Amino acid sequence: MVENNPLETPQKGDSKKASKKEAKKAKKTERKSQAEASVDEDVSVGKYGNFSLIQSNSQAPKREFHDVAKIDKALVGTNVWVRGRLHTARARGKQCFIVLRQQEFTIQALVNVCETVSKMMVKFSSNISKESIVDVEAMVSEVGGTGVAGCTQRYIELVVSQIWVVSVAASQLPLQIEDASRPEKQEDADSLNIRVNQDTRLDNRVLDLRTPANQAIFRIEAGVCRLFRDVLTKKGFVEIHTPKIIPAASEGGANVFTVSYFKGSAYLAQSPQLYKQMAIAADFGKVFTIGAVFRAEDSNTHRHLTEFTGLDLEMAFHYHYHEVMLTIGDMFNAIFKGLRDEFATEIDIVGNQFLVEPFTFLDPPLVLQYNDGRAMLAEAGVEIGPEDDLSTPAEKLLGRLVKAKYDTDFYILDKYPLAVRPFYTMPDPENKTLSNSYDMFMRGEEVTSGAQRIHDPELLTERAKHHGIELEKIAAYIDSFRYGCSPHAGGGIGLERVVMLYLGLDNIRKTSMFPRDPKLILVLKILV
Amino acid sequence: MVENNPLETPQKGDSKKASKKEAKKAKKTERKSQAEASVDEDVSVGKYGNFSLIQSNSQAPKREFHDVAKIDKALVGTNVWVRGRLHTARARGKQCFIVLRQQEFTIQALVNVCETVSKMMVKFSSNISKESIVDVEAMVSEVGGTGVAGCTQRYIELVVSQIWVVSVAASQLPLQIEDASRPEKQEDADSLNIRVNQDTRLDNRVLDLRTPANQAIFRIEAGVCRLFRDVLTKKGFVEIHTPKIIPAASEGGANVFTVSYFKGSAYLAQSPQLYKQMAIAADFGKVFTIGAVFRAEDSNTHRHLTEFTGLDLEMAFHYHYHEVMLTIGDMFNAIFKGLRDEFATEIDIVGNQFLVEPFTFLDPPLVLQYNDGRAMLAEAGVEIGPEDDLSTPAEKLLGRLVKAKYDTDFYILDKYPLAVRPFYTMPDPENKTLSNSYDMFMRGEEVTSGAQRIHDPELLTERAKHHGIELEKIAAYIDSFRYGCSPHAGGGIGLERVVMLYLGLDNIRKTSMFPRDPKLILVLKILV
Repeated sequence: MVENNPLETPQKGDSKKASKKEAKKAKKTERKSQAEASVDEDVSVGKYGNFSLIQSNSQAPKREFHDVAKIDKALVGTNVWVRGRLHTARARGKQCFIVLRQQEFTIQALVNVCETVSKMMVKFSSNISKESIVDVEAMVSEVGGTGVAGCTQRYIELVVSQIWVVSVAASQLPLQIEDASRPEKQEDADSLNIRVNQDTRLDNRVLDLRTPANQAIFRIEAGVCRLFRDVLTKKGFVEIHTPKIIPAASEGGANVFTVSYFKGSAYLAQSPQLYKQMAIAADFGKVFTIGAVFRAEDSNTHRHLTEFTGLDLEMAFHYHYHEVMLTIGDMFNAIFKGLRDEFATEIDIVGNQFLVEPFTFLDPPLVLQYNDGRAMLAEAGVEIGPEDDLSTPAEKLLGRLVKAKYDTDFYILDKYPLAVRPFYTMPDPENKTLSNSYDMFMRGEEVTSGAQRIHDPELLTERAKHHGIELEKIAAYIDSFRYGCSPHAGGGIGLERVVMLYLGLDNIRKTSMFPRDPKLILVLKILV
Repeated sequence: MVENNPLETPQKGDSKKASKKEAKKAKKTERKSQAEASVDEDVSVGKYGNFSLIQSNSQAPKREFHDVAKIDKALVGTNVWVRGRLHTARARGKQCFIVLRQQEFTIQALVNVCETVSKMMVKFSSNISKESIVDVEAMVSEVGGTGVAGCTQRYIELVVSQIWVVSVAASQLPLQIEDASRPEKQEDADSLNIRVNQDTRLDNRVLDLRTPANQAIFRIEAGVCRLFRDVLTKKGFVEIHTPKIIPAASEGGANVFTVSYFKGSAYLAQSPQLYKQMAIAADFGKVFTIGAVFRAEDSNTHRHLTEFTGLDLEMAFHYHYHEVMLTIGDMFNAIFKGLRDEFATEIDIVGNQFLVEPFTFLDPPLVLQYNDGRAMLAEAGVEIGPEDDLSTPAEKLLGRLVKAKYDTDFYILDKYPLAVRPFYTMPDPENKTLSNSYDMFMRGEEVTSGAQRIHDPELLTERAKHHGIELEKIAAYIDSFRYGCSPHAGGGIGLERVVMLYLGLDNIRKTSMFPRDPKLILVLKILV
């Protein structure tokens, strides 16, 4: 076997530097100590051990590997190679029960003392540290009765003939995957089981991300991006890329990060909006962009990040901004349908750990007038002034009222007061206090803010003055509309919020792979 | 007509604020002055003029609009509405010849004095400023003979019955679209025609981007991103998002932008690589990410930007990094095929302005050894030391030699000297001076750099020490590999370079919609 396996090497790491001859000698010594008895007794020599570092040797074996998720009864009786993590290993007499894990999928692997498997091999197997990556050669075998509890492959197991450690994990883990995967549903609130708190998770994100729920969450997040793009591309949108380094704050001067830029300084974009608008003025018609968005807000809440992923779109329309607002609404519905139809497994897996209420939506989406929303709140005892914005608690309450009345977790609130929107928002032509703007909500929290933008340089100048904005700072922006520009509207969507609220999770750090918040030291210390 | 067209209003902008009654009065006055004669003579009243600002009036008309590109002979004899830019207008006697433009597509529109079209309407049409956006109602009509020269719709024109200005362009344009669209091929080098230089273009990017070539270039760029994602998604890659704000320089300490981060400071990521690797250590297996990448290099060259779009990928492999290298090579070929098959029209349009040599590639891609590349250069009289990197001129020369010998504009150069690669690059197991790393080239310029990364914490520590890197600064990075990690490799691709080199353009500013370079003032002053 040794000749067929150029990666094989004894456990002692330094022998990998030795010549072949020395390596063989070292191997023998090692085996002896492993076996703690006569070498001759180990019938499994050359069938287990630690691989030397996989360094892309020219003699590297060419093996077919099987995915844990795809092993099925058709393979019963055949020999397969599987690379996976050793999730757990438990010795019991002459057997070692291993659970092999690949992402969210698990299968049981059995190392049984037999004619070709020695006690030493079983002992070696049971001593492999959790989270190590192993290559296993095994016979696929059927399991009768109620099957293997706790594995995603319930009625199939692997009977191991070779086991090699590809990458060894430290024996002390800062958190246990089992603990980090434990259900956190409300009904378990008084459970005595070990939980892993958010800070420990973030400090050890590489381990935390290995839980089935996290594997599923970030696949769902990738799905949201894909659906967003596919829907819009089919509608004729063009993807663009907008700069993150900008010469002036894009939304007022507050909450902006400063960058040193050679001998001067610049800022990090709080939104790609002005560039999307320039793309419209430049005739791209319908554009979208996905990219980092920065907010220097010192908000340590469950739903704020200092850096998040923005899904932004902007679209020219003919006569009414509802052409755009309904396009965005339809796009959301297409995402919800896509998640429901393509990610049912992942949604279930997240539901195994967290309390996930199914997400409901109407087709077409519900559009409420801002003033009707105010009326619903007033009826529930919460008064909002006609030119005031909704507070976060008011938004949440309205979400519950809408859900009770219309049975939808998604809706659009149209016609916000002009006073609470940015200077470039188009005023309503028929009611001076209102504007052609909208927010969209999931489970009562805002995920999108959008509006018709002013495409007329004179009105834009007038509105900027009204807001007390220094005109010279935005001269280039206003100039973009001096050479003819289609009426247009758009919106920006926070990706991490959409995933959090679709799944009903309680913290945006659960849907950001490497979250950034104002607690610099905590969040950054783990991340090079 | 007036009653059917609530958007209609006289040219005087201030009348839009007046009540309906006042508006009607104002309209009458206006018409009088427009006609410069008796109102009764203008048979076209209510069929031309300036729309009031499109502010999403509740009475907004619901009209079907036709795309210029899609108008065909089947529509001859029917009445259509088209919204487009007035590209040019030229009066000749009782006629006005208009060219309407939508992105890269153009059609002739004729305003003829007749029973229903007055002289005043023709005069109004010929006075509309270039680049204004107009709504036109017209009869689709066939053109005989050799057709309309200079329009993409050669054998169809529009006979106008209504023309309304939706958004007026300033009468003085800082650059003419025709000048900015003029062929710049080498054979025209001594032409006397007006050219628009790069700085003027960037200072007026919103106009410059309207040229057919720019409309095509950025559609091709969107295509590259889509093809990249689609190919990788089909292969099981998961899209991730990595933070741009990082606590320490990701590639040494040079060329990094500093950000003020609340009371401390942070940096802008020069590469998502370390996060991609963490995603691998976290079991995502195969990941890609598209996002902004920052380089504080004071290089004012044709191919450097301070901010560009990175297409990055990282992939676990079984025994040899060539599994990954060839996946990247195949991905490039899929992009080249996709561009060739899906973007032939756009490539032609770019070729109308710029000298575009068709891009050649081999399937599967050519893989050359670094040392064989050195030998080819030596034969051509250029000596590169065995542990030296290729200079930019050497890369270009090698590109020409490879093209001459193998007839390909794309190739992979494998096995770079260890000395010229970053500390985390896996050394070659059989030759101490080499490494498991590769670059990929298009037309002799580097578009991708990649390698097998060291996944073993001890070797990584040793190599970091060798490079003189302070271990405490990268402790978190090294720790990511302490809990078991698959061998993996990957690479990063510069989007703007790929598009520039695929098309054979001479400057990366041509393929970045809003380019960022060290000349802060010039580049930033146009961009809010």
